[in-house]
Amino acid sequence: MKLFRFGALGEEKPGAVDAQGHLRDLSLLIADFTPDRLAPEKLAALAAIDLAKMPLVPTGARLGTPVAGIRQFIAIGLNYRKHAEESGMAIPTEPVVFNKAITSLAGPNDDFALPEGSVAGDWEVELGIIMGRSAQRISEQEALAHVAGYCLANDVSERDWQAKRNGQWVKGKSFDGFGPIGPWLVTTDEIPDPQTIPLELSINGQRMQHSSTADMIFPVARIVSYLSQFMTLLPGDVIITGTPEGVGLGMKPPQHLKRGDVITLSGGILGAQQQRVL
Amino acid sequence: MKLFRFGALGEEKPGAVDAQGHLRDLSLLIADFTPDRLAPEKLAALAAIDLAKMPLVPTGARLGTPVAGIRQFIAIGLNYRKHAEESGMAIPTEPVVFNKAITSLAGPNDDFALPEGSVAGDWEVELGIIMGRSAQRISEQEALAHVAGYCLANDVSERDWQAKRNGQWVKGKSFDGFGPIGPWLVTTDEIPDPQTIPLELSINGQRMQHSSTADMIFPVARIVSYLSQFMTLLPGDVIITGTPEGVGLGMKPPQHLKRGDVITLSGGILGAQQQRVL
Repeated sequence: MKLFRFGALGEEKPGAVDAQGHLRDLSLLIADFTPDRLAPEKLAALAAIDLAKMPLVPTGARLGTPVAGIRQFIAIGLNYRKHAEESGMAIPTEPVVFNKAITSLAGPNDDFALPEGSVAGDWEVELGIIMGRSAQRISEQEALAHVAGYCLANDVSERDWQAKRNGQWVKGKSFDGFGPIGPWLVTTDEIPDPQTIPLELSINGQRMQHSSTADMIFPVARIVSYLSQFMTLLPGDVIITGTPEGVGLGMKPPQHLKRGDVITLSGGILGAQQQRVL
Repeated sequence: MKLFRFGALGEEKPGAVDAQGHLRDLSLLIADFTPDRLAPEKLAALAAIDLAKMPLVPTGARLGTPVAGIRQFIAIGLNYRKHAEESGMAIPTEPVVFNKAITSLAGPNDDFALPEGSVAGDWEVELGIIMGRSAQRISEQEALAHVAGYCLANDVSERDWQAKRNGQWVKGKSFDGFGPIGPWLVTTDEIPDPQTIPLELSINGQRMQHSSTADMIFPVARIVSYLSQFMTLLPGDVIITGTPEGVGLGMKPPQHLKRGDVITLSGGILGAQQQRVL
């Protein structure tokens, strides 16, 4: 299923996309898509709902993050060979892990501001993993059974803050609005193989990134298993999995986001996002 | 006031230390020390409670983290000159920021296990800041008014995972139990100047670290203001502020935690911790 949350920030309700592509309001049945509701068997039970009998979501409603109460927002760096090369970084021999502040999370079409003093804003289209079960020291074989589903993500970055402000990338990855995810949480039954998702990103209609999760250095199962060796993952945790080549940092000369830029992202079955830089 | 939480993991109740040093149970009045309860004016209102009239906490009760529902666990690295030197790292020109997983949080006296395959466990006594109000782009002058209080912390680290596993320190800082905080949240009225706190740590009775927050490179007000430039801080967020010299990594040869080691920490008014390595 494709699950989502709609409504004003902080007042989102849960919904699901029906077979005709219409957005249906599930709030009369389900309180919210909180971490305790994300176990794969609970998500599977949603298939028992006849979506045609549920109210339509009002046209033009804002979409929020597809999951509520996200506790950890983790990111993988340099997970596509050509992106590592364009960044001037070594090809990693094991996954590079960093954090984004949970306060950077945003809905898929929420505009965001470049903070005052920011001159090196950049874009990164990515596949996001949403955890469905707690995971500690699980194997690659067990990993996908702990996943609730997948979403599209833009890992908005401030390159100067990330690289020139004394170590550790979190500084350049965490401003409000720097983490749009969604529109949908696409449950794993619809994506048996997460290494087949096309990823595309355009700035003002010009295509900058165009790749596929098939090109990842470390695939989804490896990432989930690997992270779980170092920390306990919780249901609702969002793990974004790295971006392919075509970011502004890799242009010659480097290109940065400007106020007024329109960023559009697409990820096949994951749906599409659009943000304007304020 | 000195606030704490007591009881079995996941079932903690709130309490406060009375004038005689007795632990009093506040659970008949207060649901829990959740982020929404940490605004300085709400904490100040707790002074209206006659603690002598509240039940005593059972002797030997486990202590938990002094705050419930912590959403972000942020750490500052290399914030004491001699520790940067012993680590072989440059003295930072601005604060080094990294994350610990929230699943690493533990009570002050909770024993922890070195995970299988870990050979380079290490200790770090630190002052922790607990945020009381949301903070976005605040000045140093405004910073301390956004703080709920302070706590003692052990930033348990796995040095090989931190430094030798392909970049970003979060991997070596995040295992379950690697973040004991407490025993108390000491409210800011009792610590008008957080740069006067003694910090001490011993392994099996032998003193390894002995310093004071007076030696920080970047003081508390600077840290809070600085972080708030890059991300929005939330009430309940815990920021640990770096460790002084005397960690195992700095010994010649380096010394690592062994199973059976007893770690004791003290921080003056912040109280004391003790953990055994399992």
